[in-house]
Amino acid sequence: ANTTTAKKRKMVAKLSEQERTEKLQPLLDAGWSLVNGRDAIIKEFIFSDFNQAFSFMTGVALLAEKINHHPEWFNCYNKVQVTLSTHDVGGLSSQDIRMATYFDTHAKLFN
Amino acid sequence: ANTTTAKKRKMVAKLSEQERTEKLQPLLDAGWSLVNGRDAIIKEFIFSDFNQAFSFMTGVALLAEKINHHPEWFNCYNKVQVTLSTHDVGGLSSQDIRMATYFDTHAKLFN
Amino acid sequence: ANTTTAKKRKMVAKLSEQERTEKLQPLLDAGWSLVNGRDAIIKEFIFSDFNQAFSFMTGVALLAEKINHHPEWFNCYNKVQVTLSTHDVGGLSSQDIRMATYFDTHAKLFN
Amino acid sequence: ANTTTAKKRKMVAKLSEQERTEKLQPLLDAGWSLVNGRDAIIKEFIFSDFNQAFSFMTGVALLAEKINHHPEWFNCYNKVQVTLSTHDVGGLSSQDIRMATYFDTHAKLFN
Repeated sequence: ANTTTAKKRKMVAKLSEQERTEKLQPLLDAGWSLVNGRDAIIKEFIFSDFNQAFSFMTGVALLAEKINHHPEWFNCYNKVQVTLSTHDVGGLSSQDIRMATYFDTHAKLFN
Repeated sequence: ANTTTAKKRKMVAKLSEQERTEKLQPLLDAGWSLVNGRDAIIKEFIFSDFNQAFSFMTGVALLAEKINHHPEWFNCYNKVQVTLSTHDVGGLSSQDIRMATYFDTHAKLFN
Repeated sequence: ANTTTAKKRKMVAKLSEQERTEKLQPLLDAGWSLVNGRDAIIKEFIFSDFNQAFSFMTGVALLAEKINHHPEWFNCYNKVQVTLSTHDVGGLSSQDIRMATYFDTHAKLFN
Repeated sequence: ANTTTAKKRKMVAKLSEQERTEKLQPLLDAGWSLVNGRDAIIKEFIFSDFNQAFSFMTGVALLAEKINHHPEWFNCYNKVQVTLSTHDVGGLSSQDIRMATYFDTHAKLFN
């Protein structure tokens, strides 16, 4: 039980400095930005139309629900603006890395 | 052809004073608010969880695409915040009334 | 590890006779039917229109992906026909009971 | 008014022999099949997983609702089986051609 708890706790820990260098930096290089005054990242995705934007959002929703980690996101027509942060740890965690990576991979389908 | 064009033009006209009294006011009474400094309305919907929030959003998306009038909306977990305005007329039109009414009707399903 | 494996194995075991009496029978009483020649259950849900049918399907999809147990389903306009069975055990498991219960609960939203 | 009515009527007419040669045949060459004993076409789409299958279905649903022409479709995990026909004319119409073409275009996103 202790092992399980420790494992779960680790899953939602804030990113270490090492993780920020190894895992966060590649995302920043790929178009994600740090949010001012908050340990969170943001990115805007543009699609050809609403149909593709919402198809994209549905895939994200399915993953978000599966890993129980939900984005803050804004949509208007062909634009999807996403903010990722982990409420439980008050900042960025490995869950955000995973979700951001999925956003990028999934968005590529629509290009 | 002229009739058709006139009809379409009417569909996307800004709300008249009379329409604001008769059609907009009931929405303001039902929880929609005017946005500061912009001819737009906003409302926040709260659901029991993400599953219901996104099921709700899917119904809205289907209508939005059907009538070609898309909301500005923000979602985080069980919360959906909606802003309605008509870009083509620079303010509120009958399309926003229709969409707001659908939002309210559709949201009732989930209560 | 053994405990975990045993637990997982239990999750996907075929329904016992007792479970069929206690958990499957209530579903059969609620409109689910046994499929001929196969250990599976089927039910048809009717909605007011496609918008509601697909909103419903989206909620189901989110749960299916979350628990990694996906229905066989057919949709035409306002009709959703669902067949549940667990491929890994060659018949009905507790996963099907859970999914069928969710289908019924979620469908009630739209009535 | 007459012109408009004629135009609408034309939209839902059964495919002529010429249309079958020019518009249906390319779809049959692209993997659609005629259904036995019914003027309808069918095709099966395979995706990498349920996430992509349902993202695909959402885009189709948005178009189906927009043009008010809904498929008969079956989904199980990564498989989507589609049957198209136009109920109002008792067979294939230009609506089915349009929808089938969209299915093929939209599916390409996920390959």
